[in-house]
Amino acid sequence: MNPAIVCGSAHPALGERIAGALGVSPCDRSIERFPDGEMRIVLREPVRGRDVYVVQPTSAPVGEHLLELAMLGDAAVRAGASRVIAVVPYFGYARADRRQSEGEPLAGRLAADLIGAAGFARMVVVDLHAPAIEGFFRMPVEHLEPQPAVIAALRPVLPERAVVVSPDLGGAKRADAFGRKLGLPVAIVHKQRTSGSDVAAVRITGDVEGLAPVIVDDMISTGGTIAAAIGALKKHGARDDVTVVATHGLFAAAALDRLGPLVTRFVVTDTVPPPASERVIVAGLAPLLADAIRRLHEGQSLNGLLRES
Amino acid sequence: MNPAIVCGSAHPALGERIAGALGVSPCDRSIERFPDGEMRIVLREPVRGRDVYVVQPTSAPVGEHLLELAMLGDAAVRAGASRVIAVVPYFGYARADRRQSEGEPLAGRLAADLIGAAGFARMVVVDLHAPAIEGFFRMPVEHLEPQPAVIAALRPVLPERAVVVSPDLGGAKRADAFGRKLGLPVAIVHKQRTSGSDVAAVRITGDVEGLAPVIVDDMISTGGTIAAAIGALKKHGARDDVTVVATHGLFAAAALDRLGPLVTRFVVTDTVPPPASERVIVAGLAPLLADAIRRLHEGQSLNGLLRES
Amino acid sequence: MNPAIVCGSAHPALGERIAGALGVSPCDRSIERFPDGEMRIVLREPVRGRDVYVVQPTSAPVGEHLLELAMLGDAAVRAGASRVIAVVPYFGYARADRRQSEGEPLAGRLAADLIGAAGFARMVVVDLHAPAIEGFFRMPVEHLEPQPAVIAALRPVLPERAVVVSPDLGGAKRADAFGRKLGLPVAIVHKQRTSGSDVAAVRITGDVEGLAPVIVDDMISTGGTIAAAIGALKKHGARDDVTVVATHGLFAAAALDRLGPLVTRFVVTDTVPPPASERVIVAGLAPLLADAIRRLHEGQSLNGLLRES
Amino acid sequence: MNPAIVCGSAHPALGERIAGALGVSPCDRSIERFPDGEMRIVLREPVRGRDVYVVQPTSAPVGEHLLELAMLGDAAVRAGASRVIAVVPYFGYARADRRQSEGEPLAGRLAADLIGAAGFARMVVVDLHAPAIEGFFRMPVEHLEPQPAVIAALRPVLPERAVVVSPDLGGAKRADAFGRKLGLPVAIVHKQRTSGSDVAAVRITGDVEGLAPVIVDDMISTGGTIAAAIGALKKHGARDDVTVVATHGLFAAAALDRLGPLVTRFVVTDTVPPPASERVIVAGLAPLLADAIRRLHEGQSLNGLLRES
Amino acid sequence: MNPAIVCGSAHPALGERIAGALGVSPCDRSIERFPDGEMRIVLREPVRGRDVYVVQPTSAPVGEHLLELAMLGDAAVRAGASRVIAVVPYFGYARADRRQSEGEPLAGRLAADLIGAAGFARMVVVDLHAPAIEGFFRMPVEHLEPQPAVIAALRPVLPERAVVVSPDLGGAKRADAFGRKLGLPVAIVHKQRTSGSDVAAVRITGDVEGLAPVIVDDMISTGGTIAAAIGALKKHGARDDVTVVATHGLFAAAALDRLGPLVTRFVVTDTVPPPASERVIVAGLAPLLADAIRRLHEGQSLNGLLRES
Amino acid sequence: MNPAIVCGSAHPALGERIAGALGVSPCDRSIERFPDGEMRIVLREPVRGRDVYVVQPTSAPVGEHLLELAMLGDAAVRAGASRVIAVVPYFGYARADRRQSEGEPLAGRLAADLIGAAGFARMVVVDLHAPAIEGFFRMPVEHLEPQPAVIAALRPVLPERAVVVSPDLGGAKRADAFGRKLGLPVAIVHKQRTSGSDVAAVRITGDVEGLAPVIVDDMISTGGTIAAAIGALKKHGARDDVTVVATHGLFAAAALDRLGPLVTRFVVTDTVPPPASERVIVAGLAPLLADAIRRLHEGQSLNGLLRES
Repeated sequence: MNPAIVCGSAHPALGERIAGALGVSPCDRSIERFPDGEMRIVLREPVRGRDVYVVQPTSAPVGEHLLELAMLGDAAVRAGASRVIAVVPYFGYARADRRQSEGEPLAGRLAADLIGAAGFARMVVVDLHAPAIEGFFRMPVEHLEPQPAVIAALRPVLPERAVVVSPDLGGAKRADAFGRKLGLPVAIVHKQRTSGSDVAAVRITGDVEGLAPVIVDDMISTGGTIAAAIGALKKHGARDDVTVVATHGLFAAAALDRLGPLVTRFVVTDTVPPPASERVIVAGLAPLLADAIRRLHEGQSLNGLLRES
Repeated sequence: MNPAIVCGSAHPALGERIAGALGVSPCDRSIERFPDGEMRIVLREPVRGRDVYVVQPTSAPVGEHLLELAMLGDAAVRAGASRVIAVVPYFGYARADRRQSEGEPLAGRLAADLIGAAGFARMVVVDLHAPAIEGFFRMPVEHLEPQPAVIAALRPVLPERAVVVSPDLGGAKRADAFGRKLGLPVAIVHKQRTSGSDVAAVRITGDVEGLAPVIVDDMISTGGTIAAAIGALKKHGARDDVTVVATHGLFAAAALDRLGPLVTRFVVTDTVPPPASERVIVAGLAPLLADAIRRLHEGQSLNGLLRES
Repeated sequence: MNPAIVCGSAHPALGERIAGALGVSPCDRSIERFPDGEMRIVLREPVRGRDVYVVQPTSAPVGEHLLELAMLGDAAVRAGASRVIAVVPYFGYARADRRQSEGEPLAGRLAADLIGAAGFARMVVVDLHAPAIEGFFRMPVEHLEPQPAVIAALRPVLPERAVVVSPDLGGAKRADAFGRKLGLPVAIVHKQRTSGSDVAAVRITGDVEGLAPVIVDDMISTGGTIAAAIGALKKHGARDDVTVVATHGLFAAAALDRLGPLVTRFVVTDTVPPPASERVIVAGLAPLLADAIRRLHEGQSLNGLLRES
Repeated sequence: MNPAIVCGSAHPALGERIAGALGVSPCDRSIERFPDGEMRIVLREPVRGRDVYVVQPTSAPVGEHLLELAMLGDAAVRAGASRVIAVVPYFGYARADRRQSEGEPLAGRLAADLIGAAGFARMVVVDLHAPAIEGFFRMPVEHLEPQPAVIAALRPVLPERAVVVSPDLGGAKRADAFGRKLGLPVAIVHKQRTSGSDVAAVRITGDVEGLAPVIVDDMISTGGTIAAAIGALKKHGARDDVTVVATHGLFAAAALDRLGPLVTRFVVTDTVPPPASERVIVAGLAPLLADAIRRLHEGQSLNGLLRES
Repeated sequence: MNPAIVCGSAHPALGERIAGALGVSPCDRSIERFPDGEMRIVLREPVRGRDVYVVQPTSAPVGEHLLELAMLGDAAVRAGASRVIAVVPYFGYARADRRQSEGEPLAGRLAADLIGAAGFARMVVVDLHAPAIEGFFRMPVEHLEPQPAVIAALRPVLPERAVVVSPDLGGAKRADAFGRKLGLPVAIVHKQRTSGSDVAAVRITGDVEGLAPVIVDDMISTGGTIAAAIGALKKHGARDDVTVVATHGLFAAAALDRLGPLVTRFVVTDTVPPPASERVIVAGLAPLLADAIRRLHEGQSLNGLLRES
Repeated sequence: MNPAIVCGSAHPALGERIAGALGVSPCDRSIERFPDGEMRIVLREPVRGRDVYVVQPTSAPVGEHLLELAMLGDAAVRAGASRVIAVVPYFGYARADRRQSEGEPLAGRLAADLIGAAGFARMVVVDLHAPAIEGFFRMPVEHLEPQPAVIAALRPVLPERAVVVSPDLGGAKRADAFGRKLGLPVAIVHKQRTSGSDVAAVRITGDVEGLAPVIVDDMISTGGTIAAAIGALKKHGARDDVTVVATHGLFAAAALDRLGPLVTRFVVTDTVPPPASERVIVAGLAPLLADAIRRLHEGQSLNGLLRES
């Protein structure tokens, strides 16, 4: 029997593209709001005995999207689905993966617990902010690697004489992997204390002069770090042709407006709905997610699709 | 040691009033939004070894308010609170207490599971839509009775020659209890099939002619049922002086505008923030909730505060 | 492979009828008592890899029947059954779905927890006293609607000029549904306060004079409420031809003797073993339960069999 | 604050004696039956903030007594008790501690799970049939040793020239411990194959001729094994003055009538209500249980009260 | 699809023999140690959709072997195995099945909990020290009977005029079963107090003079009890041709050296790796374990393979 | 009442120092090995009603140390301790915080589950390899910051003209924090691709020429990364006076021998037993851990002791 693809309301277009890639129609479901704001969810198509994949990034408003994801999963479990799998391309509160001071909650773990309460048998995620979040879940988590899709979208628009840039030290490993795949040098923007002074200077390791920077990161949120990096790159003689590459294009708080004048092009995936802009090139992950679902459904290994580091 | 009262953002004023009634300051906490919409919560005051009461109705947006409630509870547990108690004057998704067709989730149970995941030791609620929701929780639930407070607020504005009215059959028991307490007759608006026809006529049992109706219900959501009841009451000769009494004044979807021309006065509690309107009389529940907290804190019985039916 | 139907000792005849409707023999099992009163249970037929349905209403003695249900489920799980489903046509302690005062247990939830501990994958129930009991269980619950079967048994014996009667306000919705299906008018017996007096008079809304009452309720326990309703109906001129319709015919405490002189006929289902009496007409639910089991077994939707309200 | 002693209905006299030994009154509670056989339980005395000990052997009907124990515990937890401890002097289904064939349940584990579901923090038991049952529970179990109390009751009635006898091989260790404490020789009745024949002869190791047998076992159920042992003892010249000693005097299936002509005196404890008979000497365990409760309540070690083997 | 047999490092030879008996190759897996002593485990062969059986006795070092068993199970679950079954021929800490004094842990239960945490669906064990350990697990446990395999290995080397001997009272039942199967008489070595003295003499019930003792026990650990029994047997005129039979041949603490001069031959199974010695005859359990796995895999009853007592 | 400090066998000296800092004697306990290698653990001192802190790093052999930690916690819980807290200065399998390929287990999560099964109420850890491991536990985790203690030990031996060095990019943040505290410049050793070549050159950002490197990392395992960094530093003109600073000094696989010739001094804490060597300076964490325990015990905030990043 075909897998049933249930599209949450956080990003129905992605679910539809996944279903399309699998050659099925999305499961007929209704997600409405009562006048008081509560959701009313119905799977309008029988799922008894079928495998159900619920596609829902838990982007903001995270609470609403999490609860909807849980409700869709619960609905499928109660309706007798054989196995219900959560497909969560973007996992909200991934940065709240530890308490930074006494008095804070561990929001990432609560998000995991709510998903866990819904009865999902397994979860598929993409590019988790901290890979250890896999361990927040009792259920198995398949952590997919979007890099090949991103690079395929990036390559046709890659300027000549480019340099891969990590906007901070935490992303150096990621930048290095991109550099290796693209055959490009790598530079790292970071703050560094050169004396005992309390002020750290922004420094760049690696040459960028006369090169077109390709800044890579896991997500574009407000774009603050990226804007700072671009400033430093320009000061060090980098070209004005700036590419920003990220898996999760959240573009929070008018990030697009802010970064717009500084950036020639963005390459992001569609784990969350990407903004409509000529400058934003979208590396669609529906083929990757559909491939993962097909293999899960047919009992094949996911080797080659998983993040391996 | 004094109980720590933590106010969620769904209704901080209520938490402050509860704290005031207990003679304490609300616990210093910060609830902010990151630019991408995620919450950042910090209890800024040590709670180690203290009993913590988190006050948060889970009104719409229910997902956000639920997650915030869970985060506040989790923060208190992790910060070493002795016992953490959820005070949830209005419990969202209370009407989703059963599946009405195959393909639906059991949203009320999911909401209960999320609250349960946060590590609360006990919960205090007010006027649950279905009392059996108590059984959705593994933790003990204290179900408070707001009627005395509501009647105290109602009595000064009660018109002469009034009749207590239930707007449907489901509320008849509640109306009867009000009638007994107020020494007033009771009438019930309901649909009834008098022949085999498929159309049910709206009927009223009990006399309402020349009487001022006091419609009682558990909540005012969109006001649709109440508006219909008022229409029927007028047709049967009830006076224009209409009072609407409810525990939970949600006033969804411009209900106040819609009911405004038909209703002389509303009496509601502050389980959710009441609308600012001259016509809305608020029976504050802070004294009731504070009394319950004080007894829980001091190890006294809650007899006399609990719903008993 | 055929489903295995395991009959508990609370109502083996029903299990046998279900098996018959499915064209299978009940699973060979032995349920004995040791001399000290403890049960000894053995499934004498291999169930490894099969789907097992344990049929057991948890009627009184509820503790014994609950434990036996759990033991049968546990035996099937440990013997390697593929899925084990509880078929509980009558769920005991359904009225203990909330605490009515401090100091009470939540017996309905404990009953749910014991069933849950046995490892059942799913449960099938009929006409739960409070539909929210569905949420007491972590496992999915299929809530079946017996009304079509009851009406089919009722229709041939329905007197002319009948009126559907609810014996109290809580049952008005149920009576209305029956009236709509049967094309009959509906009346409601209820207590109502007409003045401020402390005594509520029994009143009837809807005309009953000269009509044959068909009283509908979810269960016949001691018959007290029904006897009171009949008294009121007679006072209001209803005919002596009285029909009492209920899903669960418990007939506790000699209810049959007590109601016998007042009631012309009873229509009940066989969710619990019905008393042997000429006046008791039994609407057998084996076809409904067998249909549900067959659909669960074959992975078909239960649409049309479930309660939808 | 004093501990609250709640007496279940399986053996209220024991609970009262424990309360007496602690110098407190039993907690005011009501345990009634509705006409349909369901229990209605109310703790009529506030227990908020107190430690509650529920005294209930789970003797037959085990299901009813188990459920009642769980209900009493649940009532105390929900009413806000600080810690709720189960005191279960006799644990039913202790012999169902393993499956003896495919198709059997593990009833002892289900009984443990039901007790566990009620929210008890700890359990006190006496002379478990298999000590490993301690591991069926997630909660800590205090396993008390009744031997000193039994020996104190036995000593005054001990005939001269007695021999301690185990009625089977499984009880040899227990008999040896009694022999050591009483300074008496020990004999063991057992079946033994002396050749390759299929029939085992009843043999006795140790001298019994001219001695008064003191048969010790953990429980007297139907008395079958004991009757067989007495037959063998007489054949080997033991005296007619026969004492039977056991912790749990279930006396199932008219065991007293059956053993009466063969046994001079029984010494049993009151873990279950002992039969009224001149021949039955009761070693009351209320002092032991009260001592354990007092130590638990005051945070003292139970050393010296626990079974150590 | 064939079952996947994953061999742990505690006893890979047994896993390979089981795989051989099933006609499959063991699952390709790697178990390495990092330089700091931590294990690195990888299933190198896809197991998605397959049934996986992890073969690992939890012999000493128990902690390491337990954790490795859990890691192998977890790896299979996360890699998408359909069902993962633990095959634990020897279960460590089986003797720690109860606390023997205040201050002790219940190590057997902790071992069970760790295995349970890994997500196994079912467990297969052999000759548990206490059968009630089955109840420590929430998952079903199949308790296999090795006696037929042991007797088949024993019979060819059985001396003439032999007697089956239990080295203590606890093993008398086991010895009796062997005696019945072999058509041999049975004797029991035990300590017995013949007077009130504090010293128990070692006694033997049953004749051993001139007979060749076949001592049977569940395990050979240090061999202390067995050595003592042999001493007593010789004193009572037993022949020097001594056979020692046990399921689990741990041979701890140089037991082989110590028992060597006293014992003509050992018959043990390969639940743990047996020592290489001419005197040790190994009753291989691979056929029994393979048969159990085959039946589990094909959905057949395990009747005839399970311990039945 | 004083807290009870129970020392596990992985590092009893640390537990004793903590007890000393608290002014108490370590709890009397016995940890023995049976001849077959299983542990026998007894808390020889009553802990009923007391708070118990079990001090045990889960260094290699991790399985044994984990199981022992769980056994000590379980023993304390069963013996009636009020709260039992795990103090795990070094958490084994912290690097196994995610699957790096299909077929791997999530060992860190299994370790967390075993600790969780033992009934600990809270855990105290130091410098977790990945901070998100906090979320592997359902219980609250206090993550202590050892940096002040390390810096206090480092400062007296700090060479003049030093530079803080991170041996890889992942540690740059940690190095920066040290640099800020010590008022020193920072350099980072890392691999960098300068062209499209497949070979990354080791590069150093920041000046090291003529400076004494102070390499900081979270742990010294085999020392491979550190040795490589020293090589690069020397090539870039750093002085021969090399200091290596780390929280966890595992010194696996003869790391001390290997690094000895290259390193002037090591500064490590005693989260695991440090090697005895003149070159190894130990920053004892007993004061930090004792301070945390004292605050937990007295209900004070841990502010200032926790890692805040």
